[in-house]
Amino acid sequence: MRKVLLTLEYDGTDFRGWQVQAEGRCVQGVIEEALATLLGQPTRIHGSGRTDAGVHALGQAAHFETESRRRTDLIARALNGLLARDVAVVGARDVPEDFHARYSARAKTYRYTILNRRQRSALLAGTSLHVPYPLDVDAMADALRHLRGTHDFRSFESSGGRVRDARRTISRAEIDREDDLITITVTADGFLRGMVRAIAGTLIDVGRGARTADDMPAVLAARDRSAAGPAAKPHGLCLLHVDYDLPDDALDKQPPPA
Amino acid sequence: MRKVLLTLEYDGTDFRGWQVQAEGRCVQGVIEEALATLLGQPTRIHGSGRTDAGVHALGQAAHFETESRRRTDLIARALNGLLARDVAVVGARDVPEDFHARYSARAKTYRYTILNRRQRSALLAGTSLHVPYPLDVDAMADALRHLRGTHDFRSFESSGGRVRDARRTISRAEIDREDDLITITVTADGFLRGMVRAIAGTLIDVGRGARTADDMPAVLAARDRSAAGPAAKPHGLCLLHVDYDLPDDALDKQPPPA
Repeated sequence: MRKVLLTLEYDGTDFRGWQVQAEGRCVQGVIEEALATLLGQPTRIHGSGRTDAGVHALGQAAHFETESRRRTDLIARALNGLLARDVAVVGARDVPEDFHARYSARAKTYRYTILNRRQRSALLAGTSLHVPYPLDVDAMADALRHLRGTHDFRSFESSGGRVRDARRTISRAEIDREDDLITITVTADGFLRGMVRAIAGTLIDVGRGARTADDMPAVLAARDRSAAGPAAKPHGLCLLHVDYDLPDDALDKQPPPA
Repeated sequence: MRKVLLTLEYDGTDFRGWQVQAEGRCVQGVIEEALATLLGQPTRIHGSGRTDAGVHALGQAAHFETESRRRTDLIARALNGLLARDVAVVGARDVPEDFHARYSARAKTYRYTILNRRQRSALLAGTSLHVPYPLDVDAMADALRHLRGTHDFRSFESSGGRVRDARRTISRAEIDREDDLITITVTADGFLRGMVRAIAGTLIDVGRGARTADDMPAVLAARDRSAAGPAAKPHGLCLLHVDYDLPDDALDKQPPPA
């Protein structure tokens, strides 16, 4: 059986999240529907993980099995022809039999975007959180530093979560300001449910002075969701990238050289 | 009579352009409607110029006259409360009596965005032109260089145009590539109807090898729309900024210091 890995981009605005729900449009569902049309039979896809309702992706990953002999790049193109405008296949590649989009993932990178100016934005309304009061980005950076490395992140796990082992390793955590836009970028070997939104909400608390960077060790130590700040809204969040140990390739994103 | 200048951001997707049409939703119309609600009487706004259907703006400018004594920043905030999500007032300031958003404009800056990769994008579909074949950005930059300075741009004026004097001065013209995104940024003392879209379409012709940068002097000299390339689609275009000779201020975009 052949395995194909898709790299997916989606605008989460009109989705009830990744996973098939009893009701409502979900990313997994619309892709499975397109695959069934293309391949002529029901085809299950396996994502690297769920994203919540409203969360976007530039580089979600999902694999499926098929006996089709179609060229991989033509599968991607055909799917894009079938899919609605708010979801796109941006890469497709064959992967080994023992690959699994979820269990083979080595790391994921999420970005949380804050529009920090008094007036709201028309063009960025769907992909950033509008924070109209001043934020101290240096203090937020100090707070973020405390989260780098290996910690028990139970305090940042939403109540829907409850994994057995809440230890995760954040290998990269950065905050940048460019004009009105503040971006928080976090790479970890795995994320608890709601973890990035809880981190973003807590950093916003720090940025507006409601708590300080020095509080962070105690927040981590509490292992209690109520110790951290509120979850920042989903529409500011984007899954940028999932890392695998696979030979590097361009996932056919780039046009071939002329 | 008091004059107020608004800086406006809008997502052009669901607008039939700036100007009030016989039918359909237009930016000028929705702002005038919100102003009428806020000020209690019909209020005409005067834009720096029209944008076509589908064209976006981060920094369109428009003024109106009013006898209201409301604080300028509160007018902006109240308008944002009344306006739909795809249009926002991002700045408001009082301007002198002899100011006119159109006639006082010293320069405007437009940006055209091309997504240059094989697969389409979900998140950037509404704000960039998808060009799936390779583009030679160096050749496009060479072509663009020929347009800098003062020229008769009749060849880049859409048929709906027909100004008497088609001479304009392009003071800045740049093309940049960052990953898959190519942006063409042009500043001029004025633009003919459809000029940036005609420039973008012509540069795309150069980028894919259908014409060369050396053709550009002849294209300009022809003073005929058919000499230039096709108009690139409106959804890749964004009006970034309108320059005026006014004391610099932040147009209340930035939150105040903490």
